[in-house]
Amino acid sequence: MTNQINAGGVPIGGGAPVTVQSMCDTDTRDAGATLAQIRALSDAGCELVRVAVPDEDAAAALKVITGASPIPVVADIHFDYKLAVAAAQNGAAKVRVNPGNIGSREKVREVVKACADRGIPIRVGVNGGSVKRELLAKLGLREAMLRSGLEQAETLEELGFGDICLSFKASGTADTVAVNRMAVSSPGWRWPLHLGVTETGTNGLIKSAAGIGALLLDGIGDTIRVSLTAPPTDEVAAGIALLKAVGKRKGGVEIISCPTCARRGIDVVSLAREVEAELSDIQAPLKVAVMGCAVNGPGEAREADVGVAGGLDGFAVLFRSGEAVRKVRERDIVHVLAGEARTLVKER
Amino acid sequence: MTNQINAGGVPIGGGAPVTVQSMCDTDTRDAGATLAQIRALSDAGCELVRVAVPDEDAAAALKVITGASPIPVVADIHFDYKLAVAAAQNGAAKVRVNPGNIGSREKVREVVKACADRGIPIRVGVNGGSVKRELLAKLGLREAMLRSGLEQAETLEELGFGDICLSFKASGTADTVAVNRMAVSSPGWRWPLHLGVTETGTNGLIKSAAGIGALLLDGIGDTIRVSLTAPPTDEVAAGIALLKAVGKRKGGVEIISCPTCARRGIDVVSLAREVEAELSDIQAPLKVAVMGCAVNGPGEAREADVGVAGGLDGFAVLFRSGEAVRKVRERDIVHVLAGEARTLVKER
Repeated sequence: MTNQINAGGVPIGGGAPVTVQSMCDTDTRDAGATLAQIRALSDAGCELVRVAVPDEDAAAALKVITGASPIPVVADIHFDYKLAVAAAQNGAAKVRVNPGNIGSREKVREVVKACADRGIPIRVGVNGGSVKRELLAKLGLREAMLRSGLEQAETLEELGFGDICLSFKASGTADTVAVNRMAVSSPGWRWPLHLGVTETGTNGLIKSAAGIGALLLDGIGDTIRVSLTAPPTDEVAAGIALLKAVGKRKGGVEIISCPTCARRGIDVVSLAREVEAELSDIQAPLKVAVMGCAVNGPGEAREADVGVAGGLDGFAVLFRSGEAVRKVRERDIVHVLAGEARTLVKER
Repeated sequence: MTNQINAGGVPIGGGAPVTVQSMCDTDTRDAGATLAQIRALSDAGCELVRVAVPDEDAAAALKVITGASPIPVVADIHFDYKLAVAAAQNGAAKVRVNPGNIGSREKVREVVKACADRGIPIRVGVNGGSVKRELLAKLGLREAMLRSGLEQAETLEELGFGDICLSFKASGTADTVAVNRMAVSSPGWRWPLHLGVTETGTNGLIKSAAGIGALLLDGIGDTIRVSLTAPPTDEVAAGIALLKAVGKRKGGVEIISCPTCARRGIDVVSLAREVEAELSDIQAPLKVAVMGCAVNGPGEAREADVGVAGGLDGFAVLFRSGEAVRKVRERDIVHVLAGEARTLVKER
């Protein structure tokens, strides 16, 4: 069990549920646009949002943003310790720094003081792309990233500051998984981990799902960001789906449906989408199966709370809580399934 | 190292490269439509294609299909041993059976004889949804799936047939990963593994990338199918991207680009897509970076073979083989990067 930190009411590590983050792609200096995006992210299920703070105007805008944001705001700082201090003073719930870039121990001490005064944690965020050249040449990417993060965390602790989480993000999935595994196996490891694969390119979803997913399946990771070269609300949807896929989050309707194949007796693709849309407001955990045929259909539908398995005659068999209930016409499937699902949720 | 089998010239297991499969969603009895889809799949990079064989007409159509297919065709059989025999006789490069469903030892012996006569392997394909109810109740899903596959494989070997691979697919990512890990750790394990997460619903890509990705990262798995409730060519593209993400396949241009954030100095999203499209014909391995800003940009661009990192003035810095070369106007980026990439490929 790692330490637990708290970012504006959101616990991270120490057995807390894994949370989903994203990052605004607005200009932070435009507080209105940034707040509008934060609200959209919050509505999508984002629990913690990061904004870039590249200059003093952005740090100043933080005051307005953090004052009105429905979720805690993390300030992303790369080079200037003064911006970290200003962000802490302006209501940031957490400050993210890039190890080694902040500068002298005296400057780090200023950042620590500002965060300690307001009781906010620091993330030491190591990126493969910004590890020091000398360290990279001497140790190779993985070891250099790990060393870089550990040194910064230890410096913070020497200054009496323990409210830390770390992240190790490389652009490669295998590198990211390896360095995070190395981190949690390093002697005395005690910090929560923020997971992500960075600079993920056009196959970001696949790289992130494989990398973050592999770590979560091993019980590694306390908060995640699925970095996509796409709108940030997509990152949130993907993050939530990934947590559900690896069993780290329950709740809501999970649609189980077939890959398409020649055996299908009903139009699985469109039916599955219709059923999912129809039931998207349900928060209780519910497994709904839309299966094309009798081969795996009844088996899967049996495990689901409610489901249908298609036949070859325009009819499907409705299953409920493990029992075949009756035949349903294909055109009635969405309506009937939705009704059964809602009844089941009410009964519970 | 597992045994190696050979499906129509495609080696599986025993150290062979991991291959990408898909499954037709056409009616197999319509040989023309099925062949058209197989050609599209082959063009997309599919190396082995499966077709459903639910009846005698489909088994008969296999003769035409296997005769003209550019890639080996796997026959998917669930209940009727006669269909497996017919598929083997009609040119299938591999037969997939659902363990326990084929029936008596005598029927299994007929299937084995037909496959042995033609030197084609058998996949024992265990699905979570079709494991026998009694086994499920007694052992739980994971152990029941494993037992089900092992018993069928051992039966085949007792009949003198060793040309086997197995698959264990559950609808849950965690279950699928767990049962495959249990399989390769079981005493005397010696068979190649076909990986997939089945009945993956609307978040199939995330479930598959996490499950298959986690296993591949641990060196488990010899051939994969990313099951999607979507056109099968999407499955192939996803499978290839996943193999690349986990380092199991090299070759072609890999675009490294930023997640969008407020720091970006150039329009990363559309530039990355344009560059990728422009260079899609290159087969040699090449890392091309399109980075929005100076924070991680130069670091990543430095690791890439060629790349740009955006500035804030409509210009970007071009990097080549680790060295900054010159400034490039934003509107020239695609053109310049593509030219540099092609020159680099030629020089090598």
